[in-house]
Amino acid sequence: MNNLLEQYRVVRKLTEEICAPLEKEDYVVQPIGDVSPPKWHLGHTAWFFETFVLLPNLPGYREYDPQYNFVFNSYYETVGARVVRTDRGNLSRPSVEDVYSYRRHVDRGMEHLLQTDQLPSDVSELIILGLNHEQQHQELLYTDIKYILGHNPLLPVYSPQVKVSQSQNSTDEFLTLEAGVYDIGFEGEGFCFDNELGRHKVYLQEYRIAQNLVTNGEYLAFIEAGGYRDFRFWHAEGWDWVRQKNASQPLYWHQMDGKWMHYTLAGLQEIQLSEPVCHVSYYEAAAYAAWKGKRLPTEAEWEVAADRFSWGTRWEWTNSAYLPYPGFTRAPGAVGEYNGKFMVNQMVLRGASVATPARHSRKTYRNFFHPQHQWQFTGIRLAE
Amino acid sequence: MNNLLEQYRVVRKLTEEICAPLEKEDYVVQPIGDVSPPKWHLGHTAWFFETFVLLPNLPGYREYDPQYNFVFNSYYETVGARVVRTDRGNLSRPSVEDVYSYRRHVDRGMEHLLQTDQLPSDVSELIILGLNHEQQHQELLYTDIKYILGHNPLLPVYSPQVKVSQSQNSTDEFLTLEAGVYDIGFEGEGFCFDNELGRHKVYLQEYRIAQNLVTNGEYLAFIEAGGYRDFRFWHAEGWDWVRQKNASQPLYWHQMDGKWMHYTLAGLQEIQLSEPVCHVSYYEAAAYAAWKGKRLPTEAEWEVAADRFSWGTRWEWTNSAYLPYPGFTRAPGAVGEYNGKFMVNQMVLRGASVATPARHSRKTYRNFFHPQHQWQFTGIRLAE
Amino acid sequence: MNNLLEQYRVVRKLTEEICAPLEKEDYVVQPIGDVSPPKWHLGHTAWFFETFVLLPNLPGYREYDPQYNFVFNSYYETVGARVVRTDRGNLSRPSVEDVYSYRRHVDRGMEHLLQTDQLPSDVSELIILGLNHEQQHQELLYTDIKYILGHNPLLPVYSPQVKVSQSQNSTDEFLTLEAGVYDIGFEGEGFCFDNELGRHKVYLQEYRIAQNLVTNGEYLAFIEAGGYRDFRFWHAEGWDWVRQKNASQPLYWHQMDGKWMHYTLAGLQEIQLSEPVCHVSYYEAAAYAAWKGKRLPTEAEWEVAADRFSWGTRWEWTNSAYLPYPGFTRAPGAVGEYNGKFMVNQMVLRGASVATPARHSRKTYRNFFHPQHQWQFTGIRLAE
Amino acid sequence: MNNLLEQYRVVRKLTEEICAPLEKEDYVVQPIGDVSPPKWHLGHTAWFFETFVLLPNLPGYREYDPQYNFVFNSYYETVGARVVRTDRGNLSRPSVEDVYSYRRHVDRGMEHLLQTDQLPSDVSELIILGLNHEQQHQELLYTDIKYILGHNPLLPVYSPQVKVSQSQNSTDEFLTLEAGVYDIGFEGEGFCFDNELGRHKVYLQEYRIAQNLVTNGEYLAFIEAGGYRDFRFWHAEGWDWVRQKNASQPLYWHQMDGKWMHYTLAGLQEIQLSEPVCHVSYYEAAAYAAWKGKRLPTEAEWEVAADRFSWGTRWEWTNSAYLPYPGFTRAPGAVGEYNGKFMVNQMVLRGASVATPARHSRKTYRNFFHPQHQWQFTGIRLAE
Repeated sequence: MNNLLEQYRVVRKLTEEICAPLEKEDYVVQPIGDVSPPKWHLGHTAWFFETFVLLPNLPGYREYDPQYNFVFNSYYETVGARVVRTDRGNLSRPSVEDVYSYRRHVDRGMEHLLQTDQLPSDVSELIILGLNHEQQHQELLYTDIKYILGHNPLLPVYSPQVKVSQSQNSTDEFLTLEAGVYDIGFEGEGFCFDNELGRHKVYLQEYRIAQNLVTNGEYLAFIEAGGYRDFRFWHAEGWDWVRQKNASQPLYWHQMDGKWMHYTLAGLQEIQLSEPVCHVSYYEAAAYAAWKGKRLPTEAEWEVAADRFSWGTRWEWTNSAYLPYPGFTRAPGAVGEYNGKFMVNQMVLRGASVATPARHSRKTYRNFFHPQHQWQFTGIRLAE
Repeated sequence: MNNLLEQYRVVRKLTEEICAPLEKEDYVVQPIGDVSPPKWHLGHTAWFFETFVLLPNLPGYREYDPQYNFVFNSYYETVGARVVRTDRGNLSRPSVEDVYSYRRHVDRGMEHLLQTDQLPSDVSELIILGLNHEQQHQELLYTDIKYILGHNPLLPVYSPQVKVSQSQNSTDEFLTLEAGVYDIGFEGEGFCFDNELGRHKVYLQEYRIAQNLVTNGEYLAFIEAGGYRDFRFWHAEGWDWVRQKNASQPLYWHQMDGKWMHYTLAGLQEIQLSEPVCHVSYYEAAAYAAWKGKRLPTEAEWEVAADRFSWGTRWEWTNSAYLPYPGFTRAPGAVGEYNGKFMVNQMVLRGASVATPARHSRKTYRNFFHPQHQWQFTGIRLAE
Repeated sequence: MNNLLEQYRVVRKLTEEICAPLEKEDYVVQPIGDVSPPKWHLGHTAWFFETFVLLPNLPGYREYDPQYNFVFNSYYETVGARVVRTDRGNLSRPSVEDVYSYRRHVDRGMEHLLQTDQLPSDVSELIILGLNHEQQHQELLYTDIKYILGHNPLLPVYSPQVKVSQSQNSTDEFLTLEAGVYDIGFEGEGFCFDNELGRHKVYLQEYRIAQNLVTNGEYLAFIEAGGYRDFRFWHAEGWDWVRQKNASQPLYWHQMDGKWMHYTLAGLQEIQLSEPVCHVSYYEAAAYAAWKGKRLPTEAEWEVAADRFSWGTRWEWTNSAYLPYPGFTRAPGAVGEYNGKFMVNQMVLRGASVATPARHSRKTYRNFFHPQHQWQFTGIRLAE
Repeated sequence: MNNLLEQYRVVRKLTEEICAPLEKEDYVVQPIGDVSPPKWHLGHTAWFFETFVLLPNLPGYREYDPQYNFVFNSYYETVGARVVRTDRGNLSRPSVEDVYSYRRHVDRGMEHLLQTDQLPSDVSELIILGLNHEQQHQELLYTDIKYILGHNPLLPVYSPQVKVSQSQNSTDEFLTLEAGVYDIGFEGEGFCFDNELGRHKVYLQEYRIAQNLVTNGEYLAFIEAGGYRDFRFWHAEGWDWVRQKNASQPLYWHQMDGKWMHYTLAGLQEIQLSEPVCHVSYYEAAAYAAWKGKRLPTEAEWEVAADRFSWGTRWEWTNSAYLPYPGFTRAPGAVGEYNGKFMVNQMVLRGASVATPARHSRKTYRNFFHPQHQWQFTGIRLAE
C-alpha cells in the first residue's frame, strides 16, 4: 500500500477518534461564533477532499449531496455561497449519522483515487494539503470541544484519560542571541503552508529569549499584583477588552472557595503552579510581559532561537503581526484563499500545543489569531 | 385510577409523541431567541412539576439534579438564576437521554403524589396549572420544530402524516352585532388562566365581523397589489420591520419557478389558495386589513361573536393590547409571574390553532405575542 | 386683523421665545435619538407650513430651498426621503441663522395667505393643525432643551426664571366613581386631533382615582424601600430596562453628599418632597403603583373623572395602550400620517404638563409614548 | 523673544486660522466616532498644555475650570475620567466662545512660562511635544471639517481658496533598490516621536518602488474593471467591509449624471484624472495593488527609498503593521500613553499630506490608522 493512502487513513481516523467520547448533542452546538460544531468540522474536512480533490480529479465520482457545499464551505468565496459562520450551530441537519456517511462516501472515493497508479503530483500535493488542513481541524476540534463542554453549567468531562498538561521546571533562564543577519522561512523537503515560504534574510538586534514558558504560578503573581486593574500594562484595545469582558483571569479559570481551579478536558481540576499558563489572549500575554518589564519575541527571534529551547505544549504569542513574507503570492483558485487573505489584524503564534497532532508542527509554522482570542491552547514566552 | 392522574398521563405522553419523529440533533438547536430547543421544552415542563408541585408537596422527594433549576427555569425570578434565554441552544448537556430520564423521575414522583388520598385542593390546582402549562409548550414544540426544520437549508420533513391545513369555503360574509353592554371573561367550572378572570361588562359599538378567516388567495392579492411596498397600509413600526427584514411574504413562503410554495411540517408544498393564511405578524395582519378598508376586531368583539363563527385553526390577531382585565391581581409567589408581568407591548390573539392540543382552547383564552412575531400559526379575521 | 393671523403670530413668536435663552451651540446637538436639536424643531415647524399649506395653496410662493424637505421632514413618507432621525444632530448646516431666515420667509408667505379674503375652510383647518403641531413642538423644545443641558457635565442653567414646579398639598384622597356606561372622546367646537374622535360609550366598573399626583416624597419612599431592586413590582420588560440602564431613580435625579438633587431648567436644585414626581417611565409608574397595592387608571377612567380633580402639571401615564377609538380612520394624504400609524407599542398619557403651552390641553387629549421614556414631564396618578 | 515662544505663537495661531471659515454650528457636531468636533480639538490642545505643562510647572497658575479635564481629555487614563469619545458631539457647552477664552487663558500662562529664564529642558521638551501634538490636531481639523461638511446634504464650501490637490505627471516608473542591511529610524537633532526611535538595522530583499502615487485615473480603471465586486483582490476582512458598507469608490466620490465628482474643501468638483487618488482605506489600497499584480511597500522599504521620490501630498498606506521598533519603551506617566498603547491592529502610513502643517513631516514619521479608515488624506504607492 502506498504511503499517501496510509497517511490518509491515519489522519482521517484520528479525526473520528477525537470525536469518539462525545454525546451526539455535543456535535451540534456553537456557543460563540469562533467555535464550530464538531459535526461541522467532520463535514467540512470531508467537503475539502470532495470539492478540491475528488470532483475535479476522480472521473465518475458522484457528489454526495449538492446542498453540502452550502453547508460545509468555510470561507471559500471561489466555490459559492455558504451558511453564515455564526449560523453553523443552528443546523440540526445533516445529522451526525449523515455526516459520518458523508465521510465514508468521500473515503471510498479517496481510497479509489489513492490506489491510482501515477497520481499526478499536483493532485498528491492537494491531498497533502487536505491532510494538513484536516490536522488543523483536529486541533480545532479539541479547542472547540473544550469550549462547548467548559461553558456548559454542568462542566461535563470529555475524557478522564486526557493528559492535560506538562510539568515544567521553571528556570527563569534566558538565552542570548547575537545581532546579525539570519535566515528564516521554510526550506527543504516536506510539506509547508504557502505562508512559510520563501526562506529569506532578516536582521535581528541582539536579544534574549526565555528558555521556559511563563507558568501558572508566575501568571498568578500578575493577577494578585492587580495586573488586570492597571491600565498601564495594556494596549488601549486590550484595556477596552478587559473592561468590556470584565476579564480577570485566563479562560477556564475559576476561583472557588479560595482555590484556583480550571476546567480541563478531564474535568475541573486544581491549577498546578509549575505548569505553563494556558488560554491567554495576546492582550494578556503583552500585559504580562509589560508588567515584568519584558516583551514578547518577534516571530523571527522565535524561529532563530527555536532549536535551543523546548517548545510544543502551547502556541506562543509573538509580537509580530501576520503579514506576507517577501515574495509571497497567493496561488490561483480556491486554494489561494487559504492563507493570504487573512493577513491583516491578526498576530502570529509560533510553536505548537498539546492539541496539535503529532508531526503537524515545525519551527517555521506560522499560526495566527486575532489578539482577543483565548480559546486556543496559547501561552507566553518572554524576550528582552 | 383517579381522573387527574389519567389526565397527567395523557398530557405528558402527548408531549413525547410530538417529539418522536425528531432526530436527536433536532432537540438541541435554537436558531433564534424566540425558539427554544425541544430538549429544553421537555426539561422545562418537568422542572415545572418538580419545582412547584413535588419539592413543596411530596415528602421525601429527591431533586433529580440541583443544577437543573438553573438550566430549565424559563423566567421565574422568584426561583433563582437561570441560563440566559438566547443561550439555551448552546447547551449540549443535559443530553436528550438525560432529559427523558429526568421526565421519568418526575413522573414517578407525580404518580406517587397523584395516588395520595385527598390531595389538597391547592395542590391539585397547581397540577392542573402544570398540565395547562405543558399543553402550551406542546403548541410551542410544534411551532419551534417547524422553525428549526423550516430554516434548515435541507428543509427536512417532520412527518409526512401531519395534516397541515384545512380547506375553507370562503364566503366573505360578515356577521352584524348590535351595540350594547356585553359580558366577557371566564366564568363557570373548569380551568382558566388568571388573565381570563373576572367576568366583566364592556360596551361595544355596533360592529361587523367576518365569518371566515382571510385565505392564502386573498392574501396573495395583497402581495401582488404591492402591499409590502406601500407604507400607507402599515404602522410606522411595521414599516420599519418590513424594510429591516426585507419582508415580502408570510414566514415559510417561497416563490420558486413562478410558483408559491410554503414549508410545512410535511415538507415543502404548493400553497392552497382556499386555506386560511398562516404565519403573519400583527403588522402584516393590520396592513392587510387597512388595504381592504377594514380593521382587526378587538378581543371583546371577538369573544362576544365567537359562538357564531367557527374558529380553531389559527390564532387570530386582535387589535387589543394585552392588558389586565378590571380587578386583575397577580397571585403571590412564583405562580404570580405567569401572566401579569407580560402585560405591556404585546397584542392579544384569540382562538386556537392546528397546533393547539385538543381541549386546550376556549373562547375566553387570551394568547399574546409581540407584534413582529410570525412563527406562531397566526391568521387574520377582519372586522369593520 | 383676523383671528387666525393673530393666533399664528402668537404661536410662532412663543416658539422663538422658548429658544431665546440658548447659546447657538445648544441648537445643534442631539444626545439621544428621541431628542431633536432645537434648530431642527424650528425648521421642521416652518417646513410643515411650507409643505402642507403654502406650496399647495399660495400661488406664486417660492420654496425657500428644495433641500430643506430632506432636512426637515420628520416622518412623512408621503412627502419623500428624509435625514435619518438619529442623524439630525450631525448636521451643522443649515445654520441657526439660516433656519431663522427660513422661518421669516415662511412667515411672510403665511401673513400673505392669512390676509386672503375667504380662506377656504380646508386651508384654515390645515393652518390650525399646523399651529397645534407647533405647540406640540414647543413642549418638545422644553423637554429636549432640558435633556441637552441636563446631560452636559457642566449642567448649565437654561433660565433662572423658569418656574420648575408646583407645590402640592398631598391629601391621599381618592374619588369614587360608579359603575356604568360613560361617554368619552371629543365633541363640540374647537380643534382636536383625529385620535380624540369620535365620542363613544364605554362601560366602566366602579373605581377609585386619586385626587393628587404622587409626590417626590412618596416616590422616595419607594426608592428607599428597595423598589428598584425587587422584580416583583415590575413588568418583565420593565425589569430588563432597570437592569440594562442600571436605573435607580427618576431621570435628572442625583444623590449628592446624602442629599437628593435634581436638574431643572433653572439649574441643579434640591428636591422638594411635596411636589409631584416627574420624569418617570411607564415602567416606573406601574412598579410604583404595584408597590402601593394600587394600579394606574385607564384613559377612560381618567377622562370621566377629570373634571373632579386638578391636572395640568404632569403628563400622567395611564394603563391604556394607544389604540384607535371605534370608528377611527386615517385621513387621506400626508396629514393622515399624523397619528394613526403610531398606534402600536405605546401607552397613553393624559393631562398636560408645565411645559405644555397655554390652551393646548383638554381632557380628551391623548398623548402617547413608549413605556421606557422618561424625558417628558411625566407623573403618576393612582387608581384602584 | 526666544525661539520657542515664537514657535508657540505660530502653531497656536495656525490652529485658529484653520477654524476661521467655520460657522459656529460647524464646531459642534460629530457625525461619526472617529471625527471630533472642531470645538473639541481647540479645547483639547489647550488642555494638553494646561495639564502637562502649566499645572505642574507654572507656580500660581490657576486652572481655568476643573470640569474641563473631564471634557477635553482624549484618552489619557493617567489623568482621570473623561467624556466617552463618541459623546463629544453631544456637548453644546462649553460654547465656542468659552473654548476660545480657555485658549486665551492657557496662552497667557504659556507666554508667562516661556518668558522664564532658563526653562528646564524637560519642560521645553514637553512644550515641543505639545506643539507637535497640536500640529497633529491641525491635520485632524482639516480631515474632520471635511467629513462634517462633506456629509452634510447641503455640501457647503469650507473655503473657495483651498488648493485641494496637486497635478502629477504619472510616469509609471519604479526605482530599484538593492538587497542588503539598511538603517531606519530617527537620528540626529530636532524633535521626533518616541515611536520613531531608535535607529536600527533592517535587512531588505531587493525591491522596486514606484516613483509616483497612484492617480485617480488609474484607480478609476480598477473601479471600472469591477475591482469592488471581485473578492479575489481583497483581504477577507476587507471583503466584509466592502459588503457591509456597500463600498464602491473612495470616500467623497459621487457619480452624478455620468460624471465622477468629489467633495473637496472648496466644494463639489470634477475629479482630475492625473491627481493622486485620495481617501482610500488600507483595504482598498491593498486590493488595488493586488489587482495590478503588485503590492504595497513595507515601512522600511518606503523610508530607505524616500530620498529618491517626491512625497508629501498623501499619507501612504504601507504593508507594515504598527509595532514597536527594537528597544522601544514607553515613557513613565501620562506622556507614555502617547504612542505605545496603540501598537496593535493598526497599519503604518508614511509620508505626509496636503493637510499636514509645514515642518511637521520627516521621512521617519510613523502615522497609523485602522485599516478601514478613509477619512484621512490617504493615497497609494506601489512596490514589487
